[in-house]
Amino acid sequence: MGVLPYAPMHEYTFWNMSDMLNNIRVVLSHTSHPGNIGAAARAMKTMGLRYLYLINPRHYPDPQADAMAAGADDVLRDAVVCSSIDEALHGVVFTVAMTARLRDISIGVQTPREAMPLLLQHAASQPVALLFGTEMSGLTNEEIGKAQALVNIPADPGFSSLNLAAAVQVMGYELSVAAQGFVPVAQQVQSAPHEQLEGFFAHMEKTLFEIGFLTTQNPARMMQRLRRLYARARLEQEEINILRGILSIATEYNARLRARYQQENPDISNTHDVRKY
Amino acid sequence: MGVLPYAPMHEYTFWNMSDMLNNIRVVLSHTSHPGNIGAAARAMKTMGLRYLYLINPRHYPDPQADAMAAGADDVLRDAVVCSSIDEALHGVVFTVAMTARLRDISIGVQTPREAMPLLLQHAASQPVALLFGTEMSGLTNEEIGKAQALVNIPADPGFSSLNLAAAVQVMGYELSVAAQGFVPVAQQVQSAPHEQLEGFFAHMEKTLFEIGFLTTQNPARMMQRLRRLYARARLEQEEINILRGILSIATEYNARLRARYQQENPDISNTHDVRKY
Repeated sequence: MGVLPYAPMHEYTFWNMSDMLNNIRVVLSHTSHPGNIGAAARAMKTMGLRYLYLINPRHYPDPQADAMAAGADDVLRDAVVCSSIDEALHGVVFTVAMTARLRDISIGVQTPREAMPLLLQHAASQPVALLFGTEMSGLTNEEIGKAQALVNIPADPGFSSLNLAAAVQVMGYELSVAAQGFVPVAQQVQSAPHEQLEGFFAHMEKTLFEIGFLTTQNPARMMQRLRRLYARARLEQEEINILRGILSIATEYNARLRARYQQENPDISNTHDVRKY
Repeated sequence: MGVLPYAPMHEYTFWNMSDMLNNIRVVLSHTSHPGNIGAAARAMKTMGLRYLYLINPRHYPDPQADAMAAGADDVLRDAVVCSSIDEALHGVVFTVAMTARLRDISIGVQTPREAMPLLLQHAASQPVALLFGTEMSGLTNEEIGKAQALVNIPADPGFSSLNLAAAVQVMGYELSVAAQGFVPVAQQVQSAPHEQLEGFFAHMEKTLFEIGFLTTQNPARMMQRLRRLYARARLEQEEINILRGILSIATEYNARLRARYQQENPDISNTHDVRKY
């Protein structure tokens, strides 16, 4: 992967544009049509992007993917096929999820032009991801919940369905234009990688059950809201350690409370939430 | 065609965004693959563009075009099939030609982000065109010669071949983003339409032969240079009238010179250029 082609070339100082683009993963989730995978690979390569991750593609490898790649066969060959989104996002510190519609969730939806400079700031030092959903239904709420930013390509409201590879092309184009004018921000936050965030959310969900905050069998909606809140906060690893420490203490406190309560009231089942008493 | 979808909506004052986008033609020259025509139609429609012109498409209409249009069948249905570029550009005052490479011609090559606001300024009041060449070889020099601006989508030098529909998507995207921030410029030049420019160039070429400036059988290169010069000037109709007046006078003057010379030198053949004597 050479440096980018633009004329006039900017002077690169201490950061390396090629390294920056190599930190960007394009992640396609559950793609239906292999031709779209090939076309996406081609779109990526024209914009200097080379790392493609495929979560459970319906048909892959496939001759249609090869045909549509039209010279980007190296991107296809190196594509990483994953069985879960967590596998695809392992090590990633900042994920941008694409959405074709403006969702009713507590995270701001940004334009590509707003979000790509931010993605690049992270990509200057750590792995990041652009996450695309299926052709028909886009990303699930669960997938969206694992992203730190949500991006919508502005389109005609009467016909907003960009082809998957066309959306990859637009995002790659915005990335490469943004990379042209890239100026690194000093003292950047070292965001925690995806798997540490997921560990935190799993810990939190478990704790919220244990302490009786979550009592339903379907905590998804509450957890989505909490994910959004922390996505906006852009947690660092040290902050995750602090929050998980709080969770552990809360559990222990709750366990002590429960034990004492049961000691004092041995006739009451311990299957109930202590908060109720 | 509704207004564009962006949130937050800007306030539209005395110009109409829909009218502006409706003044933009997407012209595809000699497209090989009908699937690309359909995919281009889809890309256009997502960005609020609806007027597609096809110059001698190899296969059209074609089921592959319909399949790839995926809901933009109205754009395909209304597409205008032309037998020449002059037909496709009739009435157009500003044409942007796309190029995948930086050519050795005396016109500046612009980025999409530089050129689209300019295209919109013209589109606010008059028809304009985005001109795309074939999948394999792009536009011919003759076709480029009929444009007022040349645009290259920056791409990786090792792999710069954007798919045709992907290029339409990027340009449509840049247009729609530029339309968001559109502010009309006062006292805009009323550029002459394509056919008047072509009439002027034909007149000039004829005149340059008559007066002996062009003496070879292949004046293409010199005419390309002159076209570039006048493309940069953005001629108005009144200016074309003036220049054609000069051409006419030059011819008449030359004809008078020739007639007088032949009168004074009846023994010399009149097949030679008077300038030689």
